[in-house]
Amino acid sequence: MNRQVILVSRPNGIAQADNFAIVEQPLEPLAEGQLRVRNRFLSVEPAMRGWIADAGNYSAPVPVGGVMRALAVGEVVESRCAGFSVGETMCGWFGWQQFATVAPDAVVRRVREDDLPASLALGVLGINGVTAHLALTRVGEPKVGETVLVSTAAGSVGSAVGQIAKIIGCRTVGIAGGPEKVAQCIEQFGYDAGIDYKCDDIEAALAAACPDGVDVYFDNTAGRISDAVYPHLALHSRVVVCGTAAIPAWDPWPNGPRVERHLLLKRARMQGFVIFDHMASYENSVGQLADWVRSGKLHYLEDVLDGLEACPDALAGLYRGENNGKRIIRLP
Amino acid sequence: MNRQVILVSRPNGIAQADNFAIVEQPLEPLAEGQLRVRNRFLSVEPAMRGWIADAGNYSAPVPVGGVMRALAVGEVVESRCAGFSVGETMCGWFGWQQFATVAPDAVVRRVREDDLPASLALGVLGINGVTAHLALTRVGEPKVGETVLVSTAAGSVGSAVGQIAKIIGCRTVGIAGGPEKVAQCIEQFGYDAGIDYKCDDIEAALAAACPDGVDVYFDNTAGRISDAVYPHLALHSRVVVCGTAAIPAWDPWPNGPRVERHLLLKRARMQGFVIFDHMASYENSVGQLADWVRSGKLHYLEDVLDGLEACPDALAGLYRGENNGKRIIRLP
Repeated sequence: MNRQVILVSRPNGIAQADNFAIVEQPLEPLAEGQLRVRNRFLSVEPAMRGWIADAGNYSAPVPVGGVMRALAVGEVVESRCAGFSVGETMCGWFGWQQFATVAPDAVVRRVREDDLPASLALGVLGINGVTAHLALTRVGEPKVGETVLVSTAAGSVGSAVGQIAKIIGCRTVGIAGGPEKVAQCIEQFGYDAGIDYKCDDIEAALAAACPDGVDVYFDNTAGRISDAVYPHLALHSRVVVCGTAAIPAWDPWPNGPRVERHLLLKRARMQGFVIFDHMASYENSVGQLADWVRSGKLHYLEDVLDGLEACPDALAGLYRGENNGKRIIRLP
Repeated sequence: MNRQVILVSRPNGIAQADNFAIVEQPLEPLAEGQLRVRNRFLSVEPAMRGWIADAGNYSAPVPVGGVMRALAVGEVVESRCAGFSVGETMCGWFGWQQFATVAPDAVVRRVREDDLPASLALGVLGINGVTAHLALTRVGEPKVGETVLVSTAAGSVGSAVGQIAKIIGCRTVGIAGGPEKVAQCIEQFGYDAGIDYKCDDIEAALAAACPDGVDVYFDNTAGRISDAVYPHLALHSRVVVCGTAAIPAWDPWPNGPRVERHLLLKRARMQGFVIFDHMASYENSVGQLADWVRSGKLHYLEDVLDGLEACPDALAGLYRGENNGKRIIRLP
């Protein structure tokens, strides 16, 4: 038998626990060309909100009644597919379920870093770390000595962005919610300065932390934090639009202060980044990230929940800010 | 005696005729290192609104009581400056006045195109043409076969953008106000399609004119036209933020539909362009533009007003949409 987390209704806004159900399904025999993976770690991503949403997105919406789309790490337990052997560890689009029966195109990569925890393939050595690395370097294009400002700075993408920017030689400033997360930014992720977005005067905090302006703004929020940041953009600065976590819904489409004047006056650039455009560089990026992890230059935090039962509320909990580090589900 | 147009009060919004006054001043003797230019053509630019505004801009505001800043073309009538000879034609920051007494850094360039009208140095062979050329190619980065959408498409920048995009091999769509300007876009500037932004349903018009989406949006407006365009951006599209003519004032700062989600979903880029960053490429660009003018590939329209008396209302008239082509003032 297989146990699966199914999307049972489409949420308006953030998916809550009751938008999902756990079901049991018999495991069908494997067809030619398929492989079966026993999942050990399931990922929980802020981007799942978009994968579920009915509105246009960069991937087709998860159908109601379908297994929740998710990256996962597991081992091949059965294979009728050349090039995949039982016992190999894979990271791929295996979904929120115990066993995944998939074609090889669901596999993102073989997990080869045997000296490091396999769960990292979902975080700092996975979509989060690779997004941080490639979005920062390709869209942000930080230069030595520049100020890099990161929103959701203690999150799984943001914390990697801050550390990679530091490795590149930038001054790093992290924005996070509450004094504990701000302290974490500085103590665990090496930010030069931290800003609590729940403070009374975020404008003054930004001006104090970024006296020469912001050269690279790596953003995962797109809400009032960004609105406060844009006036602080430096000449020829770059804004990496990597997520819109601060916007609960895009229907009705929300308004905000117009950005065009900032972009014109500062000759600044704003650009969206989605990792799916950069999969050809994934393996090289993981190799670089793994080296940084091994040499102690790149730290990570994992927020581990146990069992498939934790899945339904895990995404909502992420948006409630409960997690401390990359949220993953560990399966027995 | 010299006659000058002075800024007598700072407008809130668009400068009107009564924000200026015409005064007479005796011509002082030339100091060592100065040259005197007799202006023949004065420029009128939408960007003047920003040069006058008190708010931060890419140049210091014109002081109240000072001569209105403007590009002009004229001939050197007196020189105490090595390298500048009486009789040479110069384009530079000579201001709205009959005679300019300036240091050589006010000169933008010598006008060498003796076979073409000198006034073109203020339009298609000047800041407008060079802005169109460099902003389109460097920020817009159009590729053969792509759809390039231009707002203020019949204007002095926009009309050059549309024609240069056509030379590059793009499909061009122009947005302009009213059926006459739309017809002008197609008949005089070779756009493949035109959109009247005063029409009932600009969304439907955009969808019809850009069925594969917009690859490059060259914008001078930043208002409701842009708001309608953003949802039509194609994957990996580029928005050139060249002006904000549709926003009457930035105090209070106006709101509009948030752009971040479009940029993320389409992995699109928005970037500001100001010609002052690209002055090193000015001469090369003028050379290219002049070749296109000579070969009949690049057309232009001039809207000529006569005499210094026309200056005070000329900018307000531009924002009233009165001009038909690049507005210049001809002096006797």
